[in-house]
Amino acid sequence: MGEAAKNKVGGLAGVVAGKSAICTVGTGHGLNYRGYDIYDLARACEFEEVAYLLLKGELPNLKQLQEFKASLKQARSLPKELKEALKLLPKDAHPMDVIRTGCSFLGCLEQEHYDVFTMKFDEQEKVAIRLLGIFPSILGFWHHYHKSSKEVSTDSTQDSIGGYFLEILHQTPPKELWVKAMHASLILYAEHEFNASTFTSRVITATMSCMYSAITGAIGALKGPLHGGANEAAMDLITEFKTPQEAIEGVKKKLQNKDKIMGFGHRVYVKEDPRNVVIKEWSKKLSDDVQDTQKLYEISEAIEKLMWDEKKLFPNLDFYSASAYHFMGIPTLYFTPIFIFSRTAGWAAHIFEQRANNKLIRPSSEYVGPENKKFLPINER
Amino acid sequence: MGEAAKNKVGGLAGVVAGKSAICTVGTGHGLNYRGYDIYDLARACEFEEVAYLLLKGELPNLKQLQEFKASLKQARSLPKELKEALKLLPKDAHPMDVIRTGCSFLGCLEQEHYDVFTMKFDEQEKVAIRLLGIFPSILGFWHHYHKSSKEVSTDSTQDSIGGYFLEILHQTPPKELWVKAMHASLILYAEHEFNASTFTSRVITATMSCMYSAITGAIGALKGPLHGGANEAAMDLITEFKTPQEAIEGVKKKLQNKDKIMGFGHRVYVKEDPRNVVIKEWSKKLSDDVQDTQKLYEISEAIEKLMWDEKKLFPNLDFYSASAYHFMGIPTLYFTPIFIFSRTAGWAAHIFEQRANNKLIRPSSEYVGPENKKFLPINER
Repeated sequence: MGEAAKNKVGGLAGVVAGKSAICTVGTGHGLNYRGYDIYDLARACEFEEVAYLLLKGELPNLKQLQEFKASLKQARSLPKELKEALKLLPKDAHPMDVIRTGCSFLGCLEQEHYDVFTMKFDEQEKVAIRLLGIFPSILGFWHHYHKSSKEVSTDSTQDSIGGYFLEILHQTPPKELWVKAMHASLILYAEHEFNASTFTSRVITATMSCMYSAITGAIGALKGPLHGGANEAAMDLITEFKTPQEAIEGVKKKLQNKDKIMGFGHRVYVKEDPRNVVIKEWSKKLSDDVQDTQKLYEISEAIEKLMWDEKKLFPNLDFYSASAYHFMGIPTLYFTPIFIFSRTAGWAAHIFEQRANNKLIRPSSEYVGPENKKFLPINER
Repeated sequence: MGEAAKNKVGGLAGVVAGKSAICTVGTGHGLNYRGYDIYDLARACEFEEVAYLLLKGELPNLKQLQEFKASLKQARSLPKELKEALKLLPKDAHPMDVIRTGCSFLGCLEQEHYDVFTMKFDEQEKVAIRLLGIFPSILGFWHHYHKSSKEVSTDSTQDSIGGYFLEILHQTPPKELWVKAMHASLILYAEHEFNASTFTSRVITATMSCMYSAITGAIGALKGPLHGGANEAAMDLITEFKTPQEAIEGVKKKLQNKDKIMGFGHRVYVKEDPRNVVIKEWSKKLSDDVQDTQKLYEISEAIEKLMWDEKKLFPNLDFYSASAYHFMGIPTLYFTPIFIFSRTAGWAAHIFEQRANNKLIRPSSEYVGPENKKFLPINER
């Protein structure tokens, strides 16, 4: 170990694991994709523009966007073997496990091509588009098959990923307001530097494995409640209460019991999560539109104020995403899957970048175990 | 970024990413598991003793080993849904993709239990045993179904993982010599500190995701030719040549062309790979036993000598594993899957350890992209 062992780092916090030209966290309004301010992107763009930006480095013009959206639409279809596999998965499977398995399964059916002469994965963009297109199909097909034995079609009136997801889920074209809310939400979730799932995808990619392996692994990381699962936990929290007053008392009690309150604070942001401003606006708009009889928006605001007053903790993107998704009729268990639909763009961008200048990612550990144990053969133990 | 950005590390080489009491690389004979010298373990133990050591921290006595082996044997059975899913996977799928998918699929059928009161995954050892037991079944079942439409049984005369794999593959009980060779090989591959696949499993685990997610991701990382895939590449190399002399000339030419010669050198070892000594002995024994008409052992030795003379590079574990596996009639594409059967013990030990003292693993990146890009709405682009 030598010198390295002296560098006692916890969870690699603040340790630079590589260079990247994709995203900055902490400059401008606090988040930039490819040098563009997150507020500009989240308020003026469709998600597909931002996915294009992440994958190709530049925002598309109208023609480029239309072509890109057409290729995403084409990528929605489910191979028959994958449909059969989804039918075999249990009804009570975790949706994140379902999409992780669907991604891995598709990687068997449609292996990523590696060109042995150029020594490059020369169809990586095609694979990224395939996965961005197909993930809502995987969830939608599995959902309806197990809910009502119906094998739903992947045809859709919608030309956006968010709109398509709402349509395959609800089996009816979504309101325009909801499609817009999905654009904003997917943009906010699309990319976030070396977060745990993205870092997972880079570690896997760095062994020169395929994109399916990298994204399957990333989905597995995103499943964890300390990462993507936080929006579901936030939903569980706000639906515990019937009024803002009840919420204040309830959360106070939780704080006294030192329970963890999900959806607050962030490893990287110190003062606020810039994404919260945008998603909170959307939660409010959707709340007004839907007639929020459960008072979820008010309850969320009450919890936000309390957490700031008591703990100086700010809501992160996950907190108001919970109510926003709920207002669009999305089951809580599908909140983290939406994160997949979006973050796949960021994962793929990082996979491309890692490949373009690859080095195996292989840290060391500090050994704290026993030394020089005397070996005894089994009949002497 | 601040200070962190100045620390320009490539691939986290030499960076300590956490504490671990499982393995040291570089002390004693160069490799120790839980404080025991790899030579003692690889020459005197069955693989199951070492898997027990990794998972539980101590070597088993005879009774403990028997119980452990019985539980591993029980863990071999394939649920019918998983069998159907394996039948749906194409015949020309990559075997690593097949096992990755099988692992993920099983995680849907047999979700890992999380106890909300103790806040612990309280059946993690059961899941580890399940995966150690079932992986050879997944590969064997898929192999025979697509080779001869036969649905093979997971019943076996063999009480070891290596023996079971050889039996389900060849559909006949293996020679005792082969079973012993498998024990040694599986022990050598079982654990290697924070290598890329193990590190992947820890990054995924640190989000509090399930063990299936972590091991599915680890399999994806192991698939890469810069990690587990190296033994297959070594086999491709040695079978290119018909004589040792041809090999010397051929490899010289490759070196002149600056081709990468797989199976040599190591990120962590500088002078030699201690595991090579043991696997080379086994390659020799199996070569003598099988009557090595292809001269693979001699060719391997000729390449070893040349690589040392010309480049001062030593063979790593992967190099002689290739011929050793080949002598046992194992198809080259199944070399890396064997690595899974073994390394699952190491992965699981690291998952337990990560969980016991968890912190999210989330490094930073050094931003090298554009700044302050002026946003133009799409109709102005």
